[in-house]
Amino acid sequence: MEHLETKPLVVVKLSPKISQEAVDWLIKRITSDKQDGGCQLEVELVKEDNLLYISASKNRLLYGAEIVGLKKEYKDGSMREFYFSDGSNFKKFEDDEFLLESEAHYIIKIELDGLRAKDEKCIPGHPSVHLYPGKSIFRRMESKQLITDLFALHNRRALNRLRLEWYRNIDPKLSSPLDSVREYFGDTISIYFAFLNFYTVGLVPLVLYGLLVWFLGLNAWQVDDNWSLAAVHVLWSAVLLEMWNRKSNELSYKWGSLGLKEWEEPRSGFRGELGINEITQRQEPTYPYWKRYIRMYFISLPIVIVCLAMAVWLMFYYFSWEFYLMEKFANETGFWVPLLKNAPSVTYSILIIIANALYRSLAEYLTDQENHRLESTYQNHLISKILLFHFANSFLCLFYIAFIYEDMRMLRMTLRNLFIVHMVISQAMETLLPYWQYKIRSRNINTTNNVHARANVDHERTELSIAEQTQRELKREVYSGTFDDYLELWLQFGYVVLFSCVYPPAALFALLNNIVEERSDAFKMSNVFRRPFGYRTSGIGAWQTAFQALSYLAVISNLALIFNSPKFLEWFYKTVPSATPTTVLMTFLVLEHVLLFARYCVSMLIPTVPRWVKVETGKLNYWSMQALKKQRSEHLRPTQVIRRSLGAINAFNNNNPRPSSAN
Amino acid sequence: MEHLETKPLVVVKLSPKISQEAVDWLIKRITSDKQDGGCQLEVELVKEDNLLYISASKNRLLYGAEIVGLKKEYKDGSMREFYFSDGSNFKKFEDDEFLLESEAHYIIKIELDGLRAKDEKCIPGHPSVHLYPGKSIFRRMESKQLITDLFALHNRRALNRLRLEWYRNIDPKLSSPLDSVREYFGDTISIYFAFLNFYTVGLVPLVLYGLLVWFLGLNAWQVDDNWSLAAVHVLWSAVLLEMWNRKSNELSYKWGSLGLKEWEEPRSGFRGELGINEITQRQEPTYPYWKRYIRMYFISLPIVIVCLAMAVWLMFYYFSWEFYLMEKFANETGFWVPLLKNAPSVTYSILIIIANALYRSLAEYLTDQENHRLESTYQNHLISKILLFHFANSFLCLFYIAFIYEDMRMLRMTLRNLFIVHMVISQAMETLLPYWQYKIRSRNINTTNNVHARANVDHERTELSIAEQTQRELKREVYSGTFDDYLELWLQFGYVVLFSCVYPPAALFALLNNIVEERSDAFKMSNVFRRPFGYRTSGIGAWQTAFQALSYLAVISNLALIFNSPKFLEWFYKTVPSATPTTVLMTFLVLEHVLLFARYCVSMLIPTVPRWVKVETGKLNYWSMQALKKQRSEHLRPTQVIRRSLGAINAFNNNNPRPSSAN
Repeated sequence: MEHLETKPLVVVKLSPKISQEAVDWLIKRITSDKQDGGCQLEVELVKEDNLLYISASKNRLLYGAEIVGLKKEYKDGSMREFYFSDGSNFKKFEDDEFLLESEAHYIIKIELDGLRAKDEKCIPGHPSVHLYPGKSIFRRMESKQLITDLFALHNRRALNRLRLEWYRNIDPKLSSPLDSVREYFGDTISIYFAFLNFYTVGLVPLVLYGLLVWFLGLNAWQVDDNWSLAAVHVLWSAVLLEMWNRKSNELSYKWGSLGLKEWEEPRSGFRGELGINEITQRQEPTYPYWKRYIRMYFISLPIVIVCLAMAVWLMFYYFSWEFYLMEKFANETGFWVPLLKNAPSVTYSILIIIANALYRSLAEYLTDQENHRLESTYQNHLISKILLFHFANSFLCLFYIAFIYEDMRMLRMTLRNLFIVHMVISQAMETLLPYWQYKIRSRNINTTNNVHARANVDHERTELSIAEQTQRELKREVYSGTFDDYLELWLQFGYVVLFSCVYPPAALFALLNNIVEERSDAFKMSNVFRRPFGYRTSGIGAWQTAFQALSYLAVISNLALIFNSPKFLEWFYKTVPSATPTTVLMTFLVLEHVLLFARYCVSMLIPTVPRWVKVETGKLNYWSMQALKKQRSEHLRPTQVIRRSLGAINAFNNNNPRPSSAN
Repeated sequence: MEHLETKPLVVVKLSPKISQEAVDWLIKRITSDKQDGGCQLEVELVKEDNLLYISASKNRLLYGAEIVGLKKEYKDGSMREFYFSDGSNFKKFEDDEFLLESEAHYIIKIELDGLRAKDEKCIPGHPSVHLYPGKSIFRRMESKQLITDLFALHNRRALNRLRLEWYRNIDPKLSSPLDSVREYFGDTISIYFAFLNFYTVGLVPLVLYGLLVWFLGLNAWQVDDNWSLAAVHVLWSAVLLEMWNRKSNELSYKWGSLGLKEWEEPRSGFRGELGINEITQRQEPTYPYWKRYIRMYFISLPIVIVCLAMAVWLMFYYFSWEFYLMEKFANETGFWVPLLKNAPSVTYSILIIIANALYRSLAEYLTDQENHRLESTYQNHLISKILLFHFANSFLCLFYIAFIYEDMRMLRMTLRNLFIVHMVISQAMETLLPYWQYKIRSRNINTTNNVHARANVDHERTELSIAEQTQRELKREVYSGTFDDYLELWLQFGYVVLFSCVYPPAALFALLNNIVEERSDAFKMSNVFRRPFGYRTSGIGAWQTAFQALSYLAVISNLALIFNSPKFLEWFYKTVPSATPTTVLMTFLVLEHVLLFARYCVSMLIPTVPRWVKVETGKLNYWSMQALKKQRSEHLRPTQVIRRSLGAINAFNNNNPRPSSAN
């Protein structure tokens, strides 16, 4: 096993069935020059394990940072796109850790994803694995199982430091060490923890208010008097989300991901004929946008609507079955009666789980077919599709019980059951299961691989060879992204705000759950999963809209609950003696519109971007415009800039001869 | 009278009471160098008429274009900020008309507005007219009546060309010659005509549909069957406004005003201590934003709310008076009865006119006190304030009649009266009055000034000396901006869409009115008013929101009208035998939310910015970022760019010795 000049960063596990020809070709493509359509990275093949270790020198990574448009802190404190020849003006440029490890992984992943077929018709040695110009090679090899794993290696020392700071600290801190999390895992993960933390801390005043009302004996757990609690919940949700929007923009700015642009690199799944990007003039796959619109509106949309209709139909069917049995067995007793009575809800729950899973694959397929150019757009479209379905399955039945059956007792019961079951299952799935897997895995490693380590309780601290570490990490779970974590929070948020006056303790349970969740998620990220690639993201994207939608809906549902409660109606008819049900409904109507408008005003009054961020980005735009003007006056054309960039890469090549890189 | 080297562009009329000292000082400030805080413009004083003619050489204007960030067409067809030393790469740079006259006026106006006091404590010779560092000199002199008029001179030859193209053409064209209008009058005027035209053409299909329904004998003028008409109106309004948004962005891009930025020059009314603009690092007045927020939310907002409450109270008072008299005189006859019966509505109308006028000055005062930095922000805040009040005065009574009194006959009558009175009055005020004024003025000129011209029917074509022309234009009306024109369209739009099924002919009358309006506005702009300064604007600003708001409201009001109509209710109760008034209202509620959501989807589905504009602006942003990177790597700091700009101005000064410029 030849050694790489630099520490390996990314591991590619090849299928045992891959031909030697394909391996040689792949290594050649990865190591060849950028101008020749390669990645210009360093590769080491470990034949006996079918592993490729990929790494890059510091200089290569810095060039990569320039190409992907990474933003770093400039010496004047602003965040600017990194430019190699201007490197010394960036803060900490001389440091070894100028580029974070998560950024290094991101750069390598982008390079590997961007490795596209030129004139090859297929993968050499595998005539059945077709290629066409512009097709992402890694994506094709992964989908055809020629590559079985591709992941970033953990850095055991850094991980131990992070663990100490994150969840092993003794004094309980309110917030996760977001900057350290970002350094290690990248933007997508750290922004999730930032949101989880912001939301959890945000729950505290809500819970305190609820407890205060309860202690003062204001009968707070009864729906009838809870208009104040409902008002507080609704206002709270509005302010929380707007403040988060602000916070998120602030973090994005600090992390250099605010305002990612149209000229981002396309996602690896993006396919199309090789053409010229209209904006950057670089070569990349292109796909006509009208085709995407046709797929979105004439294929995806109808299918999604049909699925939603089926979900609603299923719900109605369940209700009718449930009421039929309730009526039929109302006066009967016997051993089978409770079982039969519960049959519909159990069946419904199981069907929903199956439906959710099926729909998810369908949504992924549809969104993939829409062929979005950017990862962020892809995610947003996927999230919208899945959330509509989850909304129908999780919340629609509550609305039905609340406003069609108007059975408050049943609503409270169903809400409580759904909420608690949801919480218990997710905690079990997310905390106990991973911990158990972790324990088993550790034991296996201790018994089979390393006799000495058995004595060592804190075996994560043991120094391991890269080979051993790779074997261990191959056994780890693959982290499937933040989607399920957000989805869980979204459902929880819905349970807390939509019917807050029916089941006020929800906020308290949510708070407790999230405190545990934060630690257990941290544990999972460090101990259970392989290290995910650190993608860049400027905020929580479509999730922001999804949470906002719930917050608007909460205005309507809470007001409607109040107007449905007997105590309120009694008071209303006493106050307005001439009132009829129509008057009540009219009052509701007017009030609802006024409140929705007020909610809208809250979102207008809280500026989305903090002022200092606005000034900083304004400055950057202004000075870049000035620079463009100046440059133009020196008659340097865009094409010349390209030529200069290529020139820089050539100069880099000449100064940094690559190590020989076959096995 | 000494002659300027170049054609005079702007006229300043001084008060007869101004001291010679002040005149000399003003001329010195206007002519002195930019670095010394002057305007570096050419000035000619005509002492006997108290007139200052201001002009600038072509080169001076080009430098001005660079400073204000004017965008012109680059040789590759894109719109780019003009940069003097890169001038030859812009299209038509060699032409005499490279800078439009409206742009020249704009540049001079910006320079004059930006002429700010340095260490002067007062205007020399006028110790009572105080100044402080950063105060706009022209604004102070205008408010203290030392300067009585400041306007751009017409270009009689260009104006005649424009007239021929605009409203004297024989073949009726659908659209105004927008580019020519913009060349002559600038963005604000041309975007108004673009909107008026877009809206007028947009009315055609609506009118055709209405006529079709009527001819087919579908009883279209009755409220009961008009649900299809209502649906068409609502959908039409949504699509129209979204398409306009697109069109407007396209025009703004073509006219180089898309995305005006934070670093625009502050408006002349902006006051504050002299400081450094955080973004551009240039010296300009600064004002803490929290002070503005305090004024907006703790002074303006409460006052506006009180005014609105008073308007609503006035309306209720009018209604109660009206109903009291109607009841009292229901069975009486006599000479005085009809007069007495109409007393409330006449009194109310007069009160509203007075209230609108008073409120307008109040709104202007409040918005001025808010001290907005940009003209566009100022306009938006002023428009919002005034529209709220107009909404209360013009539409609220219709809602009251429709949904509280539920008297459809009265609604139709009131709507028709309001609509027709509004149209007749505005046409009279806007077409006949100006034409009459124009006639009188022409006669006066003919009798007093120019005996020969009496024989010349088309006296606008006569060649006049600058002095004569100035005297004529001093007699012209001052154009007060597009505000009233938009307001008129906004009210008309409201009458057309809010209760479309009650009074469908509104669309037809609106169409006819607007066809006349377009011509009469064109006539007024050319013949009645002084030439306004051509300000830059990227769209119709807050008006877009105002029209959108009406369009959303129309969804609710039209649906409510349908649900209120006896025929619909009859059909509903027949279809759903178990229905109660509550069921009807619930159905309304659900349908309303669904339709509002659908309206929202329409606005989401139509992209606001056309794709080609997105690509063009994306390119510009991308290349400017690249340029900034490149520039940084050459170690050229922003401050150095400033020094270079100053250097350029110095170089310009040395190459272009200014003409002596006292009288």
